[in-house]
Amino acid sequence: MLNVRKDFPILTKVHNGHQIVYFDNAATTQKPKQVIQAIVDLLENHNGNPHRGAHILSVEASKLYDDARIAVQKFINAAHSEEVVFVRNATEALNIIARSYGETHLHEGDKIVIPISEHHANLVTWQRVARVTGAKLVYMYLDETGHFTENDLAKIDSKTKIVAFAAVSNVLGMKTPIKKIIDKAHAAGAVVVLDGAQAAPHMKSDVQQWDCDFYVFSGHKMLGSAGTGVLYGKRDLLNDMEPFLLGGDMIEYVQEQTTTFNVLPFKFEAGTENVEGAVALHAAIDYLENIGFDTIEAKEHELVTRALQGLEQIPYVHIIGSTNAEEKTGVISFTIEGVHPHDVATILDSYGIAIRSGHHCAQPYGSHIGAEASNRVSFYIYNTVEEVDYFLDKLKLVRKTMGFKD
Amino acid sequence: MLNVRKDFPILTKVHNGHQIVYFDNAATTQKPKQVIQAIVDLLENHNGNPHRGAHILSVEASKLYDDARIAVQKFINAAHSEEVVFVRNATEALNIIARSYGETHLHEGDKIVIPISEHHANLVTWQRVARVTGAKLVYMYLDETGHFTENDLAKIDSKTKIVAFAAVSNVLGMKTPIKKIIDKAHAAGAVVVLDGAQAAPHMKSDVQQWDCDFYVFSGHKMLGSAGTGVLYGKRDLLNDMEPFLLGGDMIEYVQEQTTTFNVLPFKFEAGTENVEGAVALHAAIDYLENIGFDTIEAKEHELVTRALQGLEQIPYVHIIGSTNAEEKTGVISFTIEGVHPHDVATILDSYGIAIRSGHHCAQPYGSHIGAEASNRVSFYIYNTVEEVDYFLDKLKLVRKTMGFKD
Repeated sequence: MLNVRKDFPILTKVHNGHQIVYFDNAATTQKPKQVIQAIVDLLENHNGNPHRGAHILSVEASKLYDDARIAVQKFINAAHSEEVVFVRNATEALNIIARSYGETHLHEGDKIVIPISEHHANLVTWQRVARVTGAKLVYMYLDETGHFTENDLAKIDSKTKIVAFAAVSNVLGMKTPIKKIIDKAHAAGAVVVLDGAQAAPHMKSDVQQWDCDFYVFSGHKMLGSAGTGVLYGKRDLLNDMEPFLLGGDMIEYVQEQTTTFNVLPFKFEAGTENVEGAVALHAAIDYLENIGFDTIEAKEHELVTRALQGLEQIPYVHIIGSTNAEEKTGVISFTIEGVHPHDVATILDSYGIAIRSGHHCAQPYGSHIGAEASNRVSFYIYNTVEEVDYFLDKLKLVRKTMGFKD
Repeated sequence: MLNVRKDFPILTKVHNGHQIVYFDNAATTQKPKQVIQAIVDLLENHNGNPHRGAHILSVEASKLYDDARIAVQKFINAAHSEEVVFVRNATEALNIIARSYGETHLHEGDKIVIPISEHHANLVTWQRVARVTGAKLVYMYLDETGHFTENDLAKIDSKTKIVAFAAVSNVLGMKTPIKKIIDKAHAAGAVVVLDGAQAAPHMKSDVQQWDCDFYVFSGHKMLGSAGTGVLYGKRDLLNDMEPFLLGGDMIEYVQEQTTTFNVLPFKFEAGTENVEGAVALHAAIDYLENIGFDTIEAKEHELVTRALQGLEQIPYVHIIGSTNAEEKTGVISFTIEGVHPHDVATILDSYGIAIRSGHHCAQPYGSHIGAEASNRVSFYIYNTVEEVDYFLDKLKLVRKTMGFKD
């Protein structure tokens, strides 16, 4: 079985007398020494401003940056490397799509259709597009267990210009029927924006097989460092968009009053590139591909199955969405009757267990299901069944700590 | 005298049989081991998603991130920590100002006044504002030695709503008369956007003494890592602006069709924060302040004086702008008669010397002075007089290498 814990220095951290159990992977993942070493190696041996210099350090930095782009292209199976744009994170990528595509291509009467469970980054962005263009933001509300209904899908009609959704929900941890929704959207003539922030780290991404028009994800949620994410877009769509940030490297020729812009992908990469972030993401991709997504999925499935079984046996625990492990990655959100999620997280923290509490950046969904806040555990490749059992044991102490009798 | 070379691992790098001489510091600086170690320490011991979790790693990451903001506040002497917004780099900061302030506050007939020597990030951004709002982009053309003229300053009049300029030009390396221009702009009722990308690493920044309305800079040009920069804005101005990127942490409450936004500085920090970048910038600030800007300025002055003296003795070298070291930081741009700047850089690279060639992201200035491309050397704290002499020696071989007799 997968044994990678030795690669992650932080996992030996002791907090409050307990070795840390890190179950907040949907927020950000920890970094293997291979990724840390890639950053150090860049900074100690190859650091330069890429694409701007004839000297060795600029040349080396450029090569590392360009290699990272090719690695991402292969990782998501993009047809062309220039369809891969390095951005800050998935949030920025979604903002670029909303502003540089949405705000210039949508009009009054057009529809934007998204699930109610979307992350704010893929929701507030579309509120703005709706406000600016006069388009209408329409929600698919999902059923009680978090599944898309036929009624939801029927909202994707000929007026629909954008269908945006997460490949995996960060609250529900459920795998969205990606291909089904994309086919429906394309049949209606809509452009599909697929948020891969919770998918790219956990399953094979294949933008050509899915045929999504845009795909976005963050490096830091898949073993990479903060400050680097990816915007994938089909070449024709990216070419048809306004540049977002203006500045160095994204220009072709600047005159006093007018500017022509560089070709893809540089058109969307203004300012000095984050080579460290790209190098870290490349190392992370190598690390994940060396393990293989079959192994990663099997590991997460084992963990989520064990956790679901344990949670379902606790009568005062309410799991949000599906409890079928087959439909999920390694994310479970839940509430405990009578205890505020923040208290749950704080009590578990005293045992060294790191879980999330709050609205998970999905307030409309919380309002919709009547759980403004909840707890979330999210697993990754370095977590173990023993950690899940330890978490379940300590979770059973929470209500007692708060003065309940059971 | 300042002796910091031992702190910079990359400076021992050998290229083509020569120890590297890094004179491309205006593009990006190298990193001391203290900064590299700060990144490693974060990733090995404290990595978490800040401001979102009740668990120890999120708490520690939040503390490090908030501490970095306070360090930046002190570094630039901002009145309030919430006036310091972490962004990706100076380019992004300028885009935020242009789009979230410029495009919403300027109108037809208004004037934007900038020097012709501005970096594209502080120029193409204003072209867009002019196009979108109908405002007019007006240039101050400087005299032949790069100085602002009375005629230039007279362009700042009552119609002027924005005066944007670099505190130090990345092409000329000349210190702009910051206070004089700011006072003139404020007397006219204009808002001042000060680009500190080439100033913050080299001199004491004091936003309260200058009284600039906005100030921006990049971490990677001052020993920090890529992917982190700073947008400073006076609180009232930042409060009066639209948020730029939408998503997590910048919201207050999200309903299906409307959203209210968080307070400063979070309003402008959507998505997972780049804690590594903030920690690296904090370590860089500590490193620079430990040396002190008096020492840094004295060191750069020594280097630039030596280089200017040497270059002025070579008859076929033409220095762009002032040759008075008192007016400059450690940046010199020049051309060599009969040799393309790219060839100059390539030949010097064969001796291990890293200098810049090209338009330095300031094409309008290149067109204006009739030097579309040039070379640029830029020094920093780890450079030495011996390196300058070595560079001058090898520079004298360039024309011979290209077949000239002298």
